[in-house]
Amino acid sequence: MYRTHNCNNLKRENLNESVTLSGWVQKTRNKGFIIWVDLRDRYGITQLVFDEERTPEEVFNKAKALNREFVIQVKGIVLERESKNSNINTGDVEVLVDELTILNKSNTPPFTIEDNTDGGEELRMQYRYLDIRRTPVKEKLIFRSKVSMAVRNYMTKEGFIEVETPYLIKSTPEGARDFVVPSRMNSGQFYALPQSPQTFKQLLMVGGLDKYFQIVKCFRDEDLRADRQPEFTQIDCEMTFVEQEDVLAQFEGLIKYLIKEIKGVEIEEFPRIKYEDAIKNYGNDKPDIRFGMIFSELNDLAQGKGFKVFDSQELVVGIAVPNAANFTRKEIDSLIDFVKRPQIGAKGLIWVKLNDDGSYKSSVDKFFNSSDLESWAKRTGANIGDLILILSGDAKTTRHQLSSLRMELAKKLGLRNPNEFAPVWITDFPLLEWDEETNRFHAMHHPFTAPKPEHIEILNKNPREVKANAYDLVINGNEVGGGSIRIHDGDLQAKIFDLLGLTFEEANTQFGFLMNAFKYGAPPHGGIAFGFDRLVAILCGEETIRDFIAFPKNNSGRDIMIEAPSYLDKLQLKELFLKTTEDKEN
Amino acid sequence: MYRTHNCNNLKRENLNESVTLSGWVQKTRNKGFIIWVDLRDRYGITQLVFDEERTPEEVFNKAKALNREFVIQVKGIVLERESKNSNINTGDVEVLVDELTILNKSNTPPFTIEDNTDGGEELRMQYRYLDIRRTPVKEKLIFRSKVSMAVRNYMTKEGFIEVETPYLIKSTPEGARDFVVPSRMNSGQFYALPQSPQTFKQLLMVGGLDKYFQIVKCFRDEDLRADRQPEFTQIDCEMTFVEQEDVLAQFEGLIKYLIKEIKGVEIEEFPRIKYEDAIKNYGNDKPDIRFGMIFSELNDLAQGKGFKVFDSQELVVGIAVPNAANFTRKEIDSLIDFVKRPQIGAKGLIWVKLNDDGSYKSSVDKFFNSSDLESWAKRTGANIGDLILILSGDAKTTRHQLSSLRMELAKKLGLRNPNEFAPVWITDFPLLEWDEETNRFHAMHHPFTAPKPEHIEILNKNPREVKANAYDLVINGNEVGGGSIRIHDGDLQAKIFDLLGLTFEEANTQFGFLMNAFKYGAPPHGGIAFGFDRLVAILCGEETIRDFIAFPKNNSGRDIMIEAPSYLDKLQLKELFLKTTEDKEN
Repeated sequence: MYRTHNCNNLKRENLNESVTLSGWVQKTRNKGFIIWVDLRDRYGITQLVFDEERTPEEVFNKAKALNREFVIQVKGIVLERESKNSNINTGDVEVLVDELTILNKSNTPPFTIEDNTDGGEELRMQYRYLDIRRTPVKEKLIFRSKVSMAVRNYMTKEGFIEVETPYLIKSTPEGARDFVVPSRMNSGQFYALPQSPQTFKQLLMVGGLDKYFQIVKCFRDEDLRADRQPEFTQIDCEMTFVEQEDVLAQFEGLIKYLIKEIKGVEIEEFPRIKYEDAIKNYGNDKPDIRFGMIFSELNDLAQGKGFKVFDSQELVVGIAVPNAANFTRKEIDSLIDFVKRPQIGAKGLIWVKLNDDGSYKSSVDKFFNSSDLESWAKRTGANIGDLILILSGDAKTTRHQLSSLRMELAKKLGLRNPNEFAPVWITDFPLLEWDEETNRFHAMHHPFTAPKPEHIEILNKNPREVKANAYDLVINGNEVGGGSIRIHDGDLQAKIFDLLGLTFEEANTQFGFLMNAFKYGAPPHGGIAFGFDRLVAILCGEETIRDFIAFPKNNSGRDIMIEAPSYLDKLQLKELFLKTTEDKEN
Repeated sequence: MYRTHNCNNLKRENLNESVTLSGWVQKTRNKGFIIWVDLRDRYGITQLVFDEERTPEEVFNKAKALNREFVIQVKGIVLERESKNSNINTGDVEVLVDELTILNKSNTPPFTIEDNTDGGEELRMQYRYLDIRRTPVKEKLIFRSKVSMAVRNYMTKEGFIEVETPYLIKSTPEGARDFVVPSRMNSGQFYALPQSPQTFKQLLMVGGLDKYFQIVKCFRDEDLRADRQPEFTQIDCEMTFVEQEDVLAQFEGLIKYLIKEIKGVEIEEFPRIKYEDAIKNYGNDKPDIRFGMIFSELNDLAQGKGFKVFDSQELVVGIAVPNAANFTRKEIDSLIDFVKRPQIGAKGLIWVKLNDDGSYKSSVDKFFNSSDLESWAKRTGANIGDLILILSGDAKTTRHQLSSLRMELAKKLGLRNPNEFAPVWITDFPLLEWDEETNRFHAMHHPFTAPKPEHIEILNKNPREVKANAYDLVINGNEVGGGSIRIHDGDLQAKIFDLLGLTFEEANTQFGFLMNAFKYGAPPHGGIAFGFDRLVAILCGEETIRDFIAFPKNNSGRDIMIEAPSYLDKLQLKELFLKTTEDKEN
């Protein structure tokens, strides 16, 4: 037996017990006549002591050779520590060692195994197995495991069945790019890895399973942006005989349960914002509502006064930044630089300070008098001590720009408190969006989303105005989930495919099985899918997902630890009836 | 709201309540003036009644048009049923309908949605979403979900962390054939889908996670035998600072917990059989120990008496079949036919009956006297009324043959009781097996399996004799799990790769990351993986896995419902730098 206790177990109650521990050498302090070793395992740290007088000489000598990350087993007696360490659970005791086995040696690690390591991202990923030994990374993986168990507990309690859907499915050109898998047994043919189990969960509802969920890997072969992974995990859910209200209530329940269970925080009923209002008030459809700075449109107040920057524009829009009238010239310049960055692309930024003495100071004093500025303050809700920031231009672009600025300001002002959770439902999404590039409609959620029943009749006449029974869950400015009521009527589904520019034959080749299923008593159904990686990160108060994934890929989709992807042997390709057309090996 | 209750809820307590139900029409009985409809959902069945006198005329007329599998919503009053049905939970009541909404119609299903359907395998798979509506299939999926939750409850309670390992990994020529995934971002290169998370779980142990598990999909591109799937699910587990005994105890605990939790059956300590003894006593390494018929070797008793069928052979081996002396000539002939089938390949079968009067009757009376036969009876443990069956030939083949015969007899005699659970650990597997075809050693489990420490010194001299710290869990004659203590020492791992015929360079290309990890304090570790599909089937008292998988593939690896795999567009291939060398489309 390698151990009687783990490195977090021993307490004053264990004094004078003979114990066996195994773990890694976190650090050693050699005072010549006495050697202390911090022994670490997943659970904690226990101090070992080797002592010239009390430890057998051979053991003492062996202890001198111990280095960081050596794996050892020790037997010894639990003693009371002279100088207690209240930072660790075992801080009252130490183990006086009388037997020492070196289970494995270690080279000096390429970076320090400490909470704050000296290893850069690249090195940490290459030696991910060492990175995981670091408490912050290890704790994030443990945290993820806890959240997934909490999800399953809730879903099971609520009568949902976890069903595993297949990974080797059919490629469909709709939506993002599939990863594909050549079939050896069906030459020239390919499976695809699922982008989501969407159609399968719908078929499970047709199959009468009533309430389904799955925590499942999904795959998208997209060009990777920061913090996107080619494989990612979803909590995928579907319910039968439900309206939008039922789905929202059910999954509001899940999120409340998780926040309560994991963070001990009770959340009130989630606010709801219509898509259109989210765009108008926050400039995007995933508003962070932990703070204000809600957009105010100023066209009627700010145009027609001879200021050309405003006059010819589709939209003049501003926000009141709380307690920011005292920003220095330099601070304001850096905000101007921020909005002028090519990623944001604004030409400039108008500002108005509401000074403590009630006076106004602005960058447009030449064009506007203080009664103009007062009307802006009233509209934006700015109070004395606040700063109004204004952008103008075409509506869509300007809203994007102001939204970025709002988030930047929130960061600067410390308003993005990671321990505050502000979930919000965004509802009433448009069913379709027009794509200028391909000159056709795309489904805003996906092609199986049901239009609002009262809008079905305008589908033909005025498709842009049709709203969907679709909803997103946004927490702290991150989209963590999205779903919809689905179409369950074959004719309506056919009409939507048609609007999306799929011919009958294309629709049939890609989704014939679903169209077919709709002929045999498909029930009304709807659901939602949560991005599990991001949900876990947010619950942990973080915004990047990479450390919540045990073995993530880098931005080129590579696992640099195992060196994947890699070249195949020729024989393997031949068996798959494949040739590569570009060979970078040569 | 689509329903106030489900179709399994309503009881006498609900009498006179106004309720709303939704579901599928299971069947209708139209007596002209009264129509009964069985309404079905996942949970059960409720009888609806439409009555010429009490139901509004318009509703009554609509009800006439209802057909099997129509999806409907009804509102009505709960009434006491005249003729109760004690087979269903709602059998005391019925709902007198006053509102009826047809939510969706249904074509006549291609097979009946009943416990015993008229649909063949192929049709059921093509319309799997209808097959899932059938109670036996639905219940198996629900059962699977329950088992997976029970596994997670046990593992979590025991301190294991569920960690998701990657699906896009690196192809290794070792072992079975990988499914591969071409990389668009790394031209000419491929990911592989994992055959198991083996190396990743070992890296998690190097990373100090201590106790890991995962219920995870795995992939093998093998020619499919009956009841094999290209994608399958494992319960994958690994522990640090453990010896074989610790792993066996931990997972014996898991299986006991599952059998108790799911079936309400308490199981004693699992017996253990060494690999060598399993082969000798049962002819294979996955013995069904629910019944006896243990092999007895008869060489010393049966050879040298002038019976040529026995004399020149490596092995003469028999079993005593309980209470089978009364088998008719025809029954014995059919056993002889059974062993002569090409899949079994025996030349014949010798039999000895121990008649009720104490006399012997055998197929070899010419060669053996009753004192010979008595010695065989004594050796095989046959009693009066039993039948001894004997095969001879080279040891390996003959054991295989007798093992098949033993299982066939057990089936015939009804000894394979699906509600009895007889788990057994098989231990002490050889580390290596010699492969005649490739003329080299293969790892019997996998190349990371540790030899028994006391055998390490004979690795070079006598590799065939080296036993591994490897173990299988067998239940009722099915291998449901297998694992081992792993190598954690880089030098030993290098030596094993060498024995397996991998050059240093090959080992390094394929497993360099693991070899590297072993340099930084790899702890002793070991684990196990269970075939989840099979484990679930066995716990449910069944032996085929297909119905425990929501959307299984057929024996050509095809999903005939969605028609996958399929051809890709040319553009998609081009983006992946691929050409197919055989084009079956033309």
